Formats: sequence, structure tokens, C-alpha cells
Amino acid sequence: MVFLAGGHPDTSIFGEETLREMASAVVGDGAAALQYGSTDGTGVMRETVAEVMTAEGTPVGAEHVAVTSGAQQGLDLAGRAFLEEGDLVLIESPTYHGALQAFSSYGPRVMTAPVDRRGLDVEAVREILSHERRAGYRAKFIYVVPTFQNPTGATMALERRRELLEIAREHDALILEDNPYGLLRYEGDAVPTLAALEMRERGGPERVVYLGSFSKVFAPGVRLGWIHAHPEILGAMRAARKGADLGPSVLSQTVTAAYFASGEWKTYLGRLGRRYRKRRDAVLGALGEFMPEGVSWTSPSGGFFVWVTLPQGIDAAGMLPEATERGVAYVPGADFYPGGWGGTEGRNALRLSFSFAEPRLARRGVEILAGLVREKMGDNETGPPACGCGSDVCSCAPGYSCTEAVVGVVAC
Amino acid sequence: MVFLAGGHPDTSIFGEETLREMASAVVGDGAAALQYGSTDGTGVMRETVAEVMTAEGTPVGAEHVAVTSGAQQGLDLAGRAFLEEGDLVLIESPTYHGALQAFSSYGPRVMTAPVDRRGLDVEAVREILSHERRAGYRAKFIYVVPTFQNPTGATMALERRRELLEIAREHDALILEDNPYGLLRYEGDAVPTLAALEMRERGGPERVVYLGSFSKVFAPGVRLGWIHAHPEILGAMRAARKGADLGPSVLSQTVTAAYFASGEWKTYLGRLGRRYRKRRDAVLGALGEFMPEGVSWTSPSGGFFVWVTLPQGIDAAGMLPEATERGVAYVPGADFYPGGWGGTEGRNALRLSFSFAEPRLARRGVEILAGLVREKMGDNETGPPACGCGSDVCSCAPGYSCTEAVVGVVAC
Repeated sequence: MVFLAGGHPDTSIFGEETLREMASAVVGDGAAALQYGSTDGTGVMRETVAEVMTAEGTPVGAEHVAVTSGAQQGLDLAGRAFLEEGDLVLIESPTYHGALQAFSSYGPRVMTAPVDRRGLDVEAVREILSHERRAGYRAKFIYVVPTFQNPTGATMALERRRELLEIAREHDALILEDNPYGLLRYEGDAVPTLAALEMRERGGPERVVYLGSFSKVFAPGVRLGWIHAHPEILGAMRAARKGADLGPSVLSQTVTAAYFASGEWKTYLGRLGRRYRKRRDAVLGALGEFMPEGVSWTSPSGGFFVWVTLPQGIDAAGMLPEATERGVAYVPGADFYPGGWGGTEGRNALRLSFSFAEPRLARRGVEILAGLVREKMGDNETGPPACGCGSDVCSCAPGYSCTEAVVGVVAC
Repeated sequence: MVFLAGGHPDTSIFGEETLREMASAVVGDGAAALQYGSTDGTGVMRETVAEVMTAEGTPVGAEHVAVTSGAQQGLDLAGRAFLEEGDLVLIESPTYHGALQAFSSYGPRVMTAPVDRRGLDVEAVREILSHERRAGYRAKFIYVVPTFQNPTGATMALERRRELLEIAREHDALILEDNPYGLLRYEGDAVPTLAALEMRERGGPERVVYLGSFSKVFAPGVRLGWIHAHPEILGAMRAARKGADLGPSVLSQTVTAAYFASGEWKTYLGRLGRRYRKRRDAVLGALGEFMPEGVSWTSPSGGFFVWVTLPQGIDAAGMLPEATERGVAYVPGADFYPGGWGGTEGRNALRLSFSFAEPRLARRGVEILAGLVREKMGDNETGPPACGCGSDVCSCAPGYSCTEAVVGVVAC
């Protein structure tokens, strides 16, 4: 099976020597590593978080940090702390389905704004929020994965980030910045995080709630993430956490903090980046080589994901059983919209994750998938074909013109 | 500081050799230990849970088990899955304050039934539920720590357990059996768990939702607990968990499962039991030696806790700053009642945890505490003194008779 589905990092890159060093932290710090810890995380772990954020150009203090049981818990705590039934939340379309799941427990009214090649369409955000304000409603928060977005791989442009901060201030909304992939850039210059931009402008965290994760830059098995926010927001989330758990695994924190203290992580991240870059190139190359005309895809500069748009009328969810039978797994596009598999959005799209499969295998996976798509296109009397898009320019078959606006619905 | 406050196990007993063996599991199983795992826990971990429950006389199958991020998450998931605002929940009085916190997030109506030396007063439970039924209400669940209860140390008698199962069936309520201490018995015969009794009677889990924990029998730092329940209940809790997290630390599970697989845990539990027994005896001995007449306490056969009742009028929460200043920490009794420190219940009670402090230190701590209580009694024009209770018999000062009914309010 060529696994192009889940956002699994490659953890095989840790050598036995590294694992031995990590494990020795448990021996050295045994009684403490096995004991209860603080709900907000150990002091050493919060310092580690500050170091990692600083490395991405977001210098922060450990006092603004709380460690969570994975970034997923951060999403849940945001919902728990800020959402009442019927509250307005604005999300990207498409977006990370785990966020949809986390928020939906709290019964909010979810509105969506499209993502295009330059990230969240902030003009659409402004329009939606202004319209809602006239109707007497205010969004509690805007949820965004601005860098190497899940699922499109798109990165939000700097001027859009600035504008989003302004819009959030105008409308008194929080911004939930979910940034698990920011340190995994394979080319080009880093774009500052929303948290960094706000801190530069305002001198400290204000309305950006930053969610970080150790799953992609280190290891998902430790189930560690974090929240960076203004003390009042952190306090509200701490109150919401009360009774939910007694904090993240201290054993995980001990091992993780020891690994980062060794300094080895920067070298590791470099190796990881080179490896993922090759895998991305293999997937993009294979898409160009094997996919029929009428199929388009994104070209991310980092992260894990490529978003593939098939000609309209092809149902990616419906095609999945056949694909897995032939040995390739992906996630259907509908997963990343509030309507899910029952909805209409994203039906002809799918997400490929290039983080886990080796280049040769990934290439073979895309080839299999392309064969299947060709068959479906033959079966299928569809409407206009989708655009053929390179990394910047989109073009259509003769006689069509291109409606490029949203990554998920590129069509001629 | 003599720490008689939190329910901290002694994790110093693990030798370096044992720690080294545990850590080697990470090296041996590296890539998998660092990768994402199933939300319900790894297969090996669920088998480990089945082995541990079987060792306490509750033979179960791994298919009825889900691993949680500590038993605390199990409590939260029970609230999340079963409680709507205003739903009725019946709890012990006093009870574990973490459970109060977990349930209170979901806004239930909480009713309490007293705990005495033989555990939860099931006749009181029957009366409350019948009364509620006449008013048109049904309890969603009854929350109980039947063995070495937190905070009283009381163990529910076998016939009461049988009766509670019957009452729950009659009233169509679930029973949440929270059992972190069951394997830590220092004398006497084990009483079957509610889960075991139900399975014997009905052939499988039905309405008992069993919450287990690795915090007391192994290590709180791994943050691992579990739920054992009927597949439908497990399914409802799994649905409630969706979006809340992506499962417990795989690293923690790898280390824990490897430790239990070595078989060493039974020997370890024996050593732990002998150690805790000595500490319990030191605390009980010191209470008898130093406490003035009018103070009573429980004599648990296992677990971590002794519940001390001071003469009425003495405020254990108010006394705490002075106690810590003199070098001894405990938890005020009011913490274990729904009203908390603002309420009236448990004001003259406190919980001593004997798990963490060495005998000599624990003895010194109780001596300090007794001195403080003597001073307060001198300050204080109180009503009738509390009973002086041995492990089975209570007696009063001349001229008084004893109202023994409830552990928290023993008085003359």
C-alpha cells in the first residue's frame, strides 16, 4: 500500500543512537519523569517551546506558554473556553478536519471563507464579518493554518496576514493560528507567523492564539503540542481544561525536552526537510507525468500536503475503495469541508500527503491513481474540465477560460 | 515540608536497572513508539489493561477496553458522552474533587449520598433515586470510588455493592466505578469490583463503566488510564472523544506495556504495598499518639488516604496556611464536597495522604498538625466534641453519645 493519506511524519529517521540518548533521559530523571507534573507542562518543556518558536522567528517567553496533549487538545480547549452553542466561528474552506471535529462539539455556527494560492481570502473574511456585524453577530474566532495549509499546502501572503490582524481587531475576534508545519520549509523565505507580526506591532500577544505541535518537527507519539497566548486567554483555556485531564504525559515531556536540549533537533530538521523535499518533488513530478489534462494540483513550498482537483463529476470519496484496492491511499477532499462526505464541496478533490512514502513508492502511487482517474474520466460525461495549473499560472482547454479563485474549485 | 496533601505515589522505588529496561523499550520500538497510534490505545496496551484487571479478579477482554490520557480523561469523557445541562448525577459525599470538576463542565444537577465506614450508603441512594423518579427525573449515572475511597479510605461492603447494582438496574442508571487503588490492599480479603460482580451475574459488562488508572500502581507521569465498558457505551465515549485529542501518548504506552510485559510489576506492587503499609501505620500511630480527644479518623485497609474529622468549629481550610508555614501540607475536607471551600460541608475535616512521606517524616507531620489542632481547640468555644473512633468502634467523652453515620460528620 502506498500511503498518501494521513499526515504522518517519517519517524524512521531517528537512529538507534539518538533513541538511546532520548531514552537515557528517562533513566537520568526517572522519579520525576514518572511523577505527576503541572497541568500547564513542566518548566523545562515550556522553555523548549519558547526555543522552538524563537527558531521560527517568533521570540516568546515561556510564561505565555501552556503545553497540551497534542495540538488537537489546543483546538478542543479553544472550543471549550470560547464557544457557546450558536456562536459564530470563521474557518478556511477547505480546512483541517480535526479542527472541524473539535469545534463541532460545542455547536457553533460555522462560516467559511475560501483559500486560494495565497492563503485565506481575507477580503471574503472582511465581507462575511461586516455582513454578520450588520445582523448583530460577532465571530468569536477565526481559525487559520496560514503556513503550508492543511489540506491545500497554501501559504498565506504577508500582506494578507497583516490585513487579517487588522480585520480581527476591527471585529474584536480572536485568531487561532494553527502552525504545525511552519518549520518544514523546503524553499523560499519564511513568512512571519501571525503571532510574530502581532507581537512586533503590539509588544506582546494580544488576540492571536498560537497553537504549536511537536508531531511534525519531532514525533507524534509523544502527543505534545502547545498554546501561546495572552495571559488572560491562557487563563480562560486553563479554566476550561480543569477536570479534562491532569496535564500532558510527563514521560513524553522528559524525553522531548532532553532531545531538544541536546541541540540535535536543528540538524535533524535539516535532514527531515531534505527528505520531505525529495518526496514532494517525486509526487509533483509524477502528477505532471501521469495525470491527464483537466487535473490540477498545488505546489507547496513546505509542509506535507498537495491538493489535487479532478474534473468535476469525479467523486474522490467514491473512488477511494478502488484506489486502496489497487494499493494507494489518500484522503477525499470532502473531509475538509463542514458538510463532510455528505456535502457537495470538495467532492472532486483529494489530498495527497507526501511525508510518509519514499519517492519511488510515491511515484508508483500517483501513477496508479492517475490510471484510475483516466478510467473515471472515460466513464464520465462531465461538465467543463478543471484548469491545468502550474505553480503560478492556470490554463484551460481551447474554448474555455479559467475561473481561478479558490484552490478547491478551480474549473474552466 | 511534610507532604500529606496530594495523592502522589512514591516513584522513587523504581531502581535504575528497571528504568533502564523501561527506556530500552523506546530504543527497541523507536519508530512505532514515536508515531501516531490509535485513539483507543495500542493493541499491546489494551492487552496489558486486560491483564491488570484480571489480576484484581475482574477478568476482561481487551475488546472492551479503551486507553485514556489518565483516568481523569475517562471522567471527562463520561461527562461529555452522557451529560446535558441539568441532567441528574449522583455522587458520594465526600468524593474525589477531580470528578466534581470534570462533571461540573457539563452543568449537571449533582445530588449526594453519604459515605460511611462501609462505603456509599446505598439506602440513601435508593431513597434519593425513588424520590427523583416520582418527580419525573432519572439519574444518568452514579459515580463511586468503591475501594479505598478518595478521600475517606472507606471500602464499600460486598452486600452494598450487590444492592447498588440492583438499584442502578431498577432506575436505569449507569454506574461509574472509579478504581485507581484496588490493587493496593495492605490487609484483609479483596472485595470484588462492581464490574466483576456485574460480569458474573450478566455474562459481560452492562451498566458498569469501569475507570482504571496506571497512576497509582505504576506511574502518574505516563498519564495513562482506561475505560472498560459495554461496546455501546465505549462507542458513545469514543464519539464524545472525537476531536478532543488523538489518543494517549504512544511513547508512554510503549514504556508501560514493556514494563508490564516483563512481569516485574507484581513483585513491584508487593514492595509498594509493604512500603505504603508502613507509612499508613506511621500516620495512624501518630494520630493516636498526638491528636487530642475529640478528633477522629478512618483506618483504611489500603489505598492512600486517611480522613480526619476535627471538632466542629475548627476550619481545616482556614488552618492550612499556618500548617504549611509550620511544615505540613494536607487537603482541606471542603475540597471533596460540591460546595467547595465556600460551602459548609467538610469544614472541620481534612484528608491526609500517607503515600508520599516516609514514616519518620509522616509521624513528625502529624505531630505538628496535632499541635496546631490543640491550639485551635483552645482558641475555640465549640459545640460537642467529635467522636474518638478506632478502626471499628467510636466512643464519646462522658456525658455525650455518638452519632455515627457518615464519615464526614462523626460527632457526639
